[in-house]
Amino acid sequence: MTDQPEPIQDVAHLGHVELLTPKPDESLRFFTNVLGMTETTREGQSVYLRAWGDYERHTLKLTEHPQGGVAHVAWRTVSPQALQRRARALEAAGRGIGWIDGDVGHGAAYRFTDPDGHLMEIYYDAEHYRASEDQRPRLKNQPQRYPAVGVSVRRIDHVNLLCSEVTPNRAFMQECLGFRLREHVILDDRTEAAAWISVTPLVHDIAYTLDATRARGRLHHIAYWVDNREDVLRAADIFLENDIFIETGPSKHAITQAFFVYVYEPGGNRVEIFSSGYLIFAPDWEPIVWTQAERARGQAWGLRLPESFHSYGTPTLQVAREDLRKIPVFDPL
Amino acid sequence: MTDQPEPIQDVAHLGHVELLTPKPDESLRFFTNVLGMTETTREGQSVYLRAWGDYERHTLKLTEHPQGGVAHVAWRTVSPQALQRRARALEAAGRGIGWIDGDVGHGAAYRFTDPDGHLMEIYYDAEHYRASEDQRPRLKNQPQRYPAVGVSVRRIDHVNLLCSEVTPNRAFMQECLGFRLREHVILDDRTEAAAWISVTPLVHDIAYTLDATRARGRLHHIAYWVDNREDVLRAADIFLENDIFIETGPSKHAITQAFFVYVYEPGGNRVEIFSSGYLIFAPDWEPIVWTQAERARGQAWGLRLPESFHSYGTPTLQVAREDLRKIPVFDPL
Amino acid sequence: MTDQPEPIQDVAHLGHVELLTPKPDESLRFFTNVLGMTETTREGQSVYLRAWGDYERHTLKLTEHPQGGVAHVAWRTVSPQALQRRARALEAAGRGIGWIDGDVGHGAAYRFTDPDGHLMEIYYDAEHYRASEDQRPRLKNQPQRYPAVGVSVRRIDHVNLLCSEVTPNRAFMQECLGFRLREHVILDDRTEAAAWISVTPLVHDIAYTLDATRARGRLHHIAYWVDNREDVLRAADIFLENDIFIETGPSKHAITQAFFVYVYEPGGNRVEIFSSGYLIFAPDWEPIVWTQAERARGQAWGLRLPESFHSYGTPTLQVAREDLRKIPVFDPL
Amino acid sequence: MTDQPEPIQDVAHLGHVELLTPKPDESLRFFTNVLGMTETTREGQSVYLRAWGDYERHTLKLTEHPQGGVAHVAWRTVSPQALQRRARALEAAGRGIGWIDGDVGHGAAYRFTDPDGHLMEIYYDAEHYRASEDQRPRLKNQPQRYPAVGVSVRRIDHVNLLCSEVTPNRAFMQECLGFRLREHVILDDRTEAAAWISVTPLVHDIAYTLDATRARGRLHHIAYWVDNREDVLRAADIFLENDIFIETGPSKHAITQAFFVYVYEPGGNRVEIFSSGYLIFAPDWEPIVWTQAERARGQAWGLRLPESFHSYGTPTLQVAREDLRKIPVFDPL
Repeated sequence: MTDQPEPIQDVAHLGHVELLTPKPDESLRFFTNVLGMTETTREGQSVYLRAWGDYERHTLKLTEHPQGGVAHVAWRTVSPQALQRRARALEAAGRGIGWIDGDVGHGAAYRFTDPDGHLMEIYYDAEHYRASEDQRPRLKNQPQRYPAVGVSVRRIDHVNLLCSEVTPNRAFMQECLGFRLREHVILDDRTEAAAWISVTPLVHDIAYTLDATRARGRLHHIAYWVDNREDVLRAADIFLENDIFIETGPSKHAITQAFFVYVYEPGGNRVEIFSSGYLIFAPDWEPIVWTQAERARGQAWGLRLPESFHSYGTPTLQVAREDLRKIPVFDPL
Repeated sequence: MTDQPEPIQDVAHLGHVELLTPKPDESLRFFTNVLGMTETTREGQSVYLRAWGDYERHTLKLTEHPQGGVAHVAWRTVSPQALQRRARALEAAGRGIGWIDGDVGHGAAYRFTDPDGHLMEIYYDAEHYRASEDQRPRLKNQPQRYPAVGVSVRRIDHVNLLCSEVTPNRAFMQECLGFRLREHVILDDRTEAAAWISVTPLVHDIAYTLDATRARGRLHHIAYWVDNREDVLRAADIFLENDIFIETGPSKHAITQAFFVYVYEPGGNRVEIFSSGYLIFAPDWEPIVWTQAERARGQAWGLRLPESFHSYGTPTLQVAREDLRKIPVFDPL
Repeated sequence: MTDQPEPIQDVAHLGHVELLTPKPDESLRFFTNVLGMTETTREGQSVYLRAWGDYERHTLKLTEHPQGGVAHVAWRTVSPQALQRRARALEAAGRGIGWIDGDVGHGAAYRFTDPDGHLMEIYYDAEHYRASEDQRPRLKNQPQRYPAVGVSVRRIDHVNLLCSEVTPNRAFMQECLGFRLREHVILDDRTEAAAWISVTPLVHDIAYTLDATRARGRLHHIAYWVDNREDVLRAADIFLENDIFIETGPSKHAITQAFFVYVYEPGGNRVEIFSSGYLIFAPDWEPIVWTQAERARGQAWGLRLPESFHSYGTPTLQVAREDLRKIPVFDPL
Repeated sequence: MTDQPEPIQDVAHLGHVELLTPKPDESLRFFTNVLGMTETTREGQSVYLRAWGDYERHTLKLTEHPQGGVAHVAWRTVSPQALQRRARALEAAGRGIGWIDGDVGHGAAYRFTDPDGHLMEIYYDAEHYRASEDQRPRLKNQPQRYPAVGVSVRRIDHVNLLCSEVTPNRAFMQECLGFRLREHVILDDRTEAAAWISVTPLVHDIAYTLDATRARGRLHHIAYWVDNREDVLRAADIFLENDIFIETGPSKHAITQAFFVYVYEPGGNRVEIFSSGYLIFAPDWEPIVWTQAERARGQAWGLRLPESFHSYGTPTLQVAREDLRKIPVFDPL
């Protein structure tokens, strides 16, 4: 009936993010006491953390480091075969680094960098969280007891990476990993200023945003989900009481329709508490294009984002390079 | 690394449902004035309706008929190739009826019945909704203006079918169409009393529930989504003001964690307004098994469902047979 | 212009309630860890507790006792003069007991019983809560930091007393203390089955409900306020996780329009988490009369309350008598 | 026990506001279609409107006029006697204008101006709204059916008047009418920049704000209440779809803790949709004082209000003077 190629459906979802912090104790208190996340493991300079609705053992690895930033972003595939297929595609694209034999909570992972230099990995074998007695939920379909402490974020939602050029990065994620373009901003000079892409029906699992400083490989933010807009407002109330710097929000983005609040955790990384938005079920979704003039109108209800929103980020590149040297590369084939 | 077969990922989502009503004017008023849906087309004895967040032209076909019930349930595939693959699988399973050349809003569809006799179809070619000027939204990523009339349901969510036996139906949907088992109820005598299955991360796109009357092919309910639990409460307030019979709720299910309210529309069909629940991203989700004892505890917060919830339904079977005779079957190959 | 008497406006609001519990440690854990209240003082067999939005030092005195129940209910007057006027009116009505010289957080109080025998007191001098450093809020108009622990109830709302006859009690409160009748239930045989009365615009500061067992002086429940219906739903989720027995709800009452959930705290006393409802500003409010037939329709959305809701209560009478003997009565005039 | 004078408790609540609009049809569409209010009467150049939860016949009188602005603000007293007392006090203060024999929905009113020249009136006799069949609610304690159209505001909340000097106006309202000071802003040079005052437990029934232009007698905004913060967010979504200019918000004020969104209705008047905040029950409330430095921190979560918020207003003074000439003054005594 048609000659269009079939969609790649090999990547299942965002698995976890490794954040770096120069203030590990304060960052840990932020993620546990203020966001309400749970520590699952502590190993070396890292603490592993989870939200109560995450099904994997953890979704955040918090690692002590002289500077805040992101160390790596991990994606889970839909099957072992899909993992192999994507590893081959990455290798063929010349972006592959090689296999590591896993980390706390997951097995063999294939590491690679996106064109901007952000370190990523894909893996399939993963440990499902098994709640200990004190964390056992009363509903069997819930991985963990609702903590009712602080914001009580439910699950990891997405990551937003700053980059020196948007198009090569989002095209790479589409071609090598099967991400689909959902929305993007095209400036009057045809520059792609930002792109929201996903493998799930979420409007984005990852976004790429043009770095106003033209630096490479920085992090804009990671986002955790709460169930409704009232929860985001309540989060802002909690941030206020805990002297957490609120950069902007709560308000509603035009792009993604997300209801957001952005804060800086003590390690300097931007964190978003996120709800609402919309789900995309259409297999033939037509990407939404936002023009420069449309962006100039501000957010959905007219809010202007502060200048820092476009210029502030935390680095990844140097970290990635150091990490690479420490990784015991092996060939699982 | 493993010999497990790869998942079928050919069906994208629930497309639409055709409901039958002996009171077409009153049912139409319910769906437009009370639920806040929009009429897109009127043809023959049918009115086509959509929620403001549905991306397809319509998700509900409301057809005049001497008796309430469901005429057919339609699923969209991820690609034309996927449509052909599933049609072949259905034919091979002996459940195929044949192709129809489409309906308002979609192209060629392959019709089949599940083991219980509910008429279904799969299709790929579909019209995306293009809002007319008065329905044009102010956000480009929203298919239609938010109506702010009545409940203002956002999108179709799922369908729940009564059946004389659960296992053959859910197994058929898994094997022929790639649905995944999310949660189910297994009674002490090993009877499977209900199963929640999906092709999307939604906890169910369709559920099969054992019909207490052991009738075949009946409808339990169709469900439309609203964005949060407060919207469901507001829906209940609106139903009260409009003399719509509330069968049960608002309350929270233990299974699916859904926040629900169930009403009967004037044609006799049960309709659920639904929010919350949870998303499943795990490719290796382990189905949740609920025992008879667990079900006996009531809903999440202890609510007991009324007896009617287990016995009341609206038929499909006779309708399906009549419909089949009217369908111009052709072979598109 | 008219000869109608002017309204009495001497009582300002519900001040505090003293609850009795045979399980003081478990009750304390319920009020602090599950409801999110703060302990302010511990003295003798009593712990004093407050919600984060209460302006007085405490609104709950939790006292160890062999049996659950209510010890006394306290009302604050609008002025010292109003206190004297009401004390005289109570004495004249023959319901006065006498003055006590106060308790933690408030000064001289005049004690009395309602016709059913519930012990009450009125007082004016009261300590406003001054938050210590760790409880200091970031907004100056908020008495205490938002705890973000458990339900995080905001303020005391009302008390509901069971009684052997409704009319004498609510009439006494109207005549001696200036309460206004907001809503009541009149059965077919003219029995007044319940009455909701208030001195504030809240639809009730206190309700009297006919005790199905015809016992005297029992407690139906005390209620703490949260800001919206979503908070009540969240409370139910928290009760579920903490194995707190939910008697009924969350749902909406027809009377008062309140959104409620009722639980039993470990000491056996019923506690309501309450939101919504409506405010009454009309000085000439016409009491709403609900008939037996109207009550038979269930709550706002049709929910039937469990039988226990009409028969279960915790006692006060014996306690009151014992308390009275221990109180150093004096005459401040 | 003390010599402090007793509080004046003669004014019950804000009754209604008369707004002026040069675009009567568009303004009417805004209040009915967008806010969801109901027209009750049309007389001369005025349309009378109500929110579904208002107990009086109307709370908004919308009058055609060459320029937007406020014509008068009306307060209901607690009794006929209280009306006479306050009229005498206003006359004694030299601010009285005289009696009018009423308007649609209320009887004799005593008119006066505040020191800044805003026209006001007090009245007692008032018509309670009696819903016609199509507006009959299903809950007897609700004055009118919930409309489920647009924002569906519940009730009038407060009015905010700009003035050339704050202190004389708020002191006048305190001394002559018994308003209580709840919160105010005192600049470094001791100027009182704004004051929030009320006769009810609402944190303000009226606010006075220093006019940055030093004009006299202007309106800052009128506010209608919705039940929760989600309703305010939903209002913003509805304003967006209806091309209503959103000046700022939704966000949370530090002062009053209100959750707000401000828009300009087509006649140019600023309208606030308002929820949350807090109730004041303390008879000895100590006014909250905000310093210049504290105000410089922005709203609760850091939002900066636009410059227009401090300079834009709609006039009243000339209107008031014209109105006065048209009013048939009489002496009811």
